[in-house]
Parts: sequence; structure tokens; C-alpha cells
Amino acid sequence: MKYCGVCHSDVHIGEGDLPNVMYPCVPGHELVGVVTEVGPDVTRVKVGDNVGVGCIVDACLKCASCMAGDEMLCENGGSTHTYNTMKGKYEEFGMQSHQIGNLLVQNFGGYSGSNVVHEHFLIKIPKAVPLEKAGPIMCAGITMYEPLCHYGMKEAGLNGKKKCVGIIGLGGLGTMGVKLARAMGHDVCVISTSSSKEAVAKEKGATMFVVSKDEESMKKGAKSCDLILNTVSANHELSHYLSLLRPSGTLVQLGLVTKPHTVSQLPLMFTKTAVAGSLIGGIKRTQELLEFCAAKQVLPDIEMIEAKDIDGSWDKLKDNTAGGTRFVIDIEKSKMNADFIPKSEQMD
Amino acid sequence: MKYCGVCHSDVHIGEGDLPNVMYPCVPGHELVGVVTEVGPDVTRVKVGDNVGVGCIVDACLKCASCMAGDEMLCENGGSTHTYNTMKGKYEEFGMQSHQIGNLLVQNFGGYSGSNVVHEHFLIKIPKAVPLEKAGPIMCAGITMYEPLCHYGMKEAGLNGKKKCVGIIGLGGLGTMGVKLARAMGHDVCVISTSSSKEAVAKEKGATMFVVSKDEESMKKGAKSCDLILNTVSANHELSHYLSLLRPSGTLVQLGLVTKPHTVSQLPLMFTKTAVAGSLIGGIKRTQELLEFCAAKQVLPDIEMIEAKDIDGSWDKLKDNTAGGTRFVIDIEKSKMNADFIPKSEQMD
Repeated sequence: MKYCGVCHSDVHIGEGDLPNVMYPCVPGHELVGVVTEVGPDVTRVKVGDNVGVGCIVDACLKCASCMAGDEMLCENGGSTHTYNTMKGKYEEFGMQSHQIGNLLVQNFGGYSGSNVVHEHFLIKIPKAVPLEKAGPIMCAGITMYEPLCHYGMKEAGLNGKKKCVGIIGLGGLGTMGVKLARAMGHDVCVISTSSSKEAVAKEKGATMFVVSKDEESMKKGAKSCDLILNTVSANHELSHYLSLLRPSGTLVQLGLVTKPHTVSQLPLMFTKTAVAGSLIGGIKRTQELLEFCAAKQVLPDIEMIEAKDIDGSWDKLKDNTAGGTRFVIDIEKSKMNADFIPKSEQMD
Repeated sequence: MKYCGVCHSDVHIGEGDLPNVMYPCVPGHELVGVVTEVGPDVTRVKVGDNVGVGCIVDACLKCASCMAGDEMLCENGGSTHTYNTMKGKYEEFGMQSHQIGNLLVQNFGGYSGSNVVHEHFLIKIPKAVPLEKAGPIMCAGITMYEPLCHYGMKEAGLNGKKKCVGIIGLGGLGTMGVKLARAMGHDVCVISTSSSKEAVAKEKGATMFVVSKDEESMKKGAKSCDLILNTVSANHELSHYLSLLRPSGTLVQLGLVTKPHTVSQLPLMFTKTAVAGSLIGGIKRTQELLEFCAAKQVLPDIEMIEAKDIDGSWDKLKDNTAGGTRFVIDIEKSKMNADFIPKSEQMD
């Protein structure tokens, strides 16, 4: 292990905001490192390769969704996330687990010195992607890239059809969304509750800016977006944003919002629009994304930290003061400066 | 004019269930007849051609939606429906109307002896489609064909990929949906509140049947449909049907339901599913549909009536006792037996 990105989900799980957290818990699903050992049947990677692991470390690999490359939609109990999930759950569906060792314990994530993963779930990191920036691509990046591909934006870009992609919220997800949509050749409209984000939105690449709490600004942005990716994870009413969609457009909800929305079907009918959900993405598409990021030099904005800085980083995520910057733990440096950890618990 | 289909919308508009109905009102948007006269610039049709008119008789034809063949989404005030709309509304957007005569009056529909329409909005009726059955294809048919095409079912069928299409409700729309989806090569799951519809659903071509009020039946149908077309126009909760969608599936709402739904985004996210709306379809796709229906012999089930029978037919639509049968007015026969109309109001 060389680096591990820090995701807002780590905070929610680590601090027990979500139900059923299994302690002890090692967070982290943006792992980057170098292969140190492979089993005899491994063909995809060899010792010395730069590799990463995103949010998924196991799935049945036999169902229609897995076969289609959508391991996150695995139809035999869902995919196994990188931490805070039990190993070996496919056994109860008569399927094989792709993990080794004791299958009756939970998975531990990337805030760690090492990790063992089946080669199917490894992402190869191209040379043109700096290792320390690869982690957030496999979480924030794929979360935005998946709906951009699924709803035709990558294809449109390749065919020279310029579209307009709306991005609601300018945190870690939103910033990657702006960069990816721009790299695909599209205009990008950043939608934020406050006009204070306009300068940073433009700096990240936004070509248009809408203040969602300003009626005039919303009117100016009406019918401008072919696709809107909504990263807001606080409770809200999605209908508020539908007026920004062009006819035939889709609004994709990406945040873990628990309060239901009130949705009338009439505006959807009269504009042939849709409301959809999306969550991370499959392995093949994540690999494709790494190659896209290498070719287009789409890279997350990061701030390097050491393990001892983690409390401060989590506080910034909780206070929403991290902006679009992703924190990345330098694992090797953390191991060298591990005095803050009781000797008995230090990482090997 | 030779025939005009009777749509449930005719009842809603004719009886003033919808706001702002303009009286006098001549309903009917499933017109079929023969061209009797053309202007000097007309090139698409000639005198003697069998033609039809569906729900749209005008649109700006200049905006991006019109240029994409989606005249029903015309961005300059919307398309002009065949009746109960004002002529000439594009003038206020600085655009030209494609209608003739006095542009300051409302349009009259197909329960009539004749109609004048710009050639762009005419549908040519192929020889293999019996004239009396063509009308409902341009309303009920296109309402179902449009989302089947937009959400990839026609293309999947052409590529030999068998999918499963769910159809909620087995009225005029639902019946056409079953036949069209089957003709595209797919399995069809009819979803109805009552098991009493199973025999007729199978007769129309359904390969699967789910009783939406029966928990066991809903469980058996779980994750079976790649696309669901929901024709229900009574108030309901769309979330009830989401469990029937396969991962990556879409639920398309087609009825004029006024009460909003309560929609949580979490199930949409965890299954990459979407909720969409759709309403009729554009002219080019309607023409394509007529050719599809001719080639595959997909035809609506109809019952011929005369104008004097219209009250009884409307009653059956109101009582929901028409089943999947569309009533079609035989215009020529009606004119021969027009004694029930006061002499001064008889059609020429």
C-alpha cells in the first residue's frame, strides 16, 4: 500500500452514522499500491505493477449484472464493499467467494499497510496517472463517470456532439464531474445554493453557473442541461432541479439522501425526462476511466496527509470545508511517523 | 375522412373534465382518410393517398426538439394538438404557423367529415394496414412505441437480444404495448390489479402475468422487467412497481396522473434504475410505426361504431368496460345514417 484516499463515506461509517457498522473498522476504499505477491493462477497483474482497489472487492461474477460489468449491481446479494462488509457471503447463494482466508470475518479497508484482493477487482494504474492521485478516481471519479457513460455523454463527445452537463454541488464528486464532462467535450453548468462558489466552479472548468436558491438564476438556466448529476446528500426536493433539464434529459441522483421526494409525473411526461439513481460503477468501466484520465490528464485535486492527520481531515469533511479537495493518506510516510499509534497497534 | 378512432382523452376533453376546454369542441385525434386536394407546394402526398393524422397538427419545426423529430416537445410553446387548441400560436414566438385560414380560432378534430393539415403532420398509411385500424396506431400505438424505441427495446430486438417488457394496465394503450413489445421479439409481463385479466392478457400475447395487489405474485415477478410501461391514469404510487424492474431498468409513466408520487432515491441508486415520463411521439417515429405495424401485422383490436353510437362508447370508456378494444367511427356510414343530427348541423 502506498496511498489511500479519504472519502466522506469513511466518516459516516467510521463514526457510526450508518446503521450496523462492524467494529473494529478499518475504513478506506481508494487504495493504491504495488503488487508484492501473486498466486499461481493470476494472469492480469504481476509483482511490481501499480494497482488500485476501489469500492468493490467481491461479487458473484456469474449473474447477468456482473456479466454486464455492473458488479455493483450483483444480483446474488449485492457486491462486497471494500470494508465494513462480511467476506464469503456468496456461499449462501451457492456461489464462490473470490476472497481468501477466514471467510467469516469482515473486510478491512485501505487505511492499512497491505491488502489482499482477487485480480478481477484490481484496477491497473496507467503510468500517466500520478499514483497519489489515482485513489479518488476509483470512488469519486467512477461515481460521476458511470452516469456520464450510461446516459450517452461520453459517446456524444466522441461523435463531436456538444452537450451540456449540469453538476449540482461542488465537493469531491462534483469537481471530478466538472473535469470529466469537460474532458468529454461538453459545456458544464455548475448548480450551487450559493453564488460564492461561482469563481471556484469556473476555475475547475464550469462554463455556466446557476444559483439554485435564486429564482432569476434558475430561470436563466431553464432547459439548459441534457444531463444533470446531483451530488447533494442532504435532504432536498429533486423536483426543484427539473426545470433545468432540456427535453429528453435525465436527472441522476447520486447522494445517500434518505428523505423521499415528491415527484409529479406530468412534467416528466411533457418533457420526456427521467429521474434516475446511480452508485459507483463496475470494474471494467473503472479501468476504462483510469485510461481516460491518463489520456486526458483529468486528475482530482488532492491534499496529502499522514495517518496522524486523519482527525483533522474528517473534521473538514464533516464541516464541509474541504471544498473539492480530496485528502489522500501517504501510507509509507505514515508508517515512518507512526509514533502516535500505540506500539502494539502499529501497521507492518 | 373515412374513420376516426375514439380515445379516452376525447371523453375527458369533450365532457370538460380537463380545465379550459374550448366549446364548441369537435374531438378526435385518430383521423384516417384519403387526400382529396393538395396545395401547389405539397410533395409528400398526392390526391388519392391513404393518410392519417394523429395527435399533432402543428409545431414550430425549427427548435432542437422539432429538428430531432420530437415535435410533441416543441420548445416554442409546445406542439399544437389536433383539437381543443388554438391555431397560429407560433406567431407570438416569431415563428410561422403551418395551418391555413383564420388563425385566431381553435382546431377541430376528427369526429368530422373533413380536415385540412400541413403535409408535415400527415402519416402515410401503408397498404398492409387496414384503413379502419390505422387510427388507434397513431395515438395508443405511438404512445407505447415511442418509449419502447427511446429505451432501446426496438434496437435490442433487432440485435436478437430478448428482453422483458412490463405493461401495467390492459386497456387500449396496454394492449397495443403487449403486441408491439412481442413483435419486437421480447417477453411481455402484464401487470394488473386483478387476476381476472390474466386470460385476456395471455390472449393478447403476454408471456407472464403479475397481480399487483398480490404480494406473492409481486415477489414472483421481482426484478423481471427491463422496461415497464405504466398506462395507469388513476392516482397511485409508482414506487409500488419498482421491485419488478431489473437492474438498470426504467419505469415509464404514461397516464395523466395528477397526484404526485413519493419517491426515495435510494432504491433507484442501488439498482441503477430510472423513473421517466413519455407522451405520444413525433411524426417521423409515427410514420416508422405504421411501417412496423404493416410489416409485423400489429393491429389494434377495434369495434366499429357510427356517430350515433358515440354516447354508448364514451360510457364504456368511462365505466372502464371497453377492455383493450378501441372504438372507431365509420365516418362515411355515419354520414349516410345521420338522421339523429339536426339537419342544420349535418356533416358535408
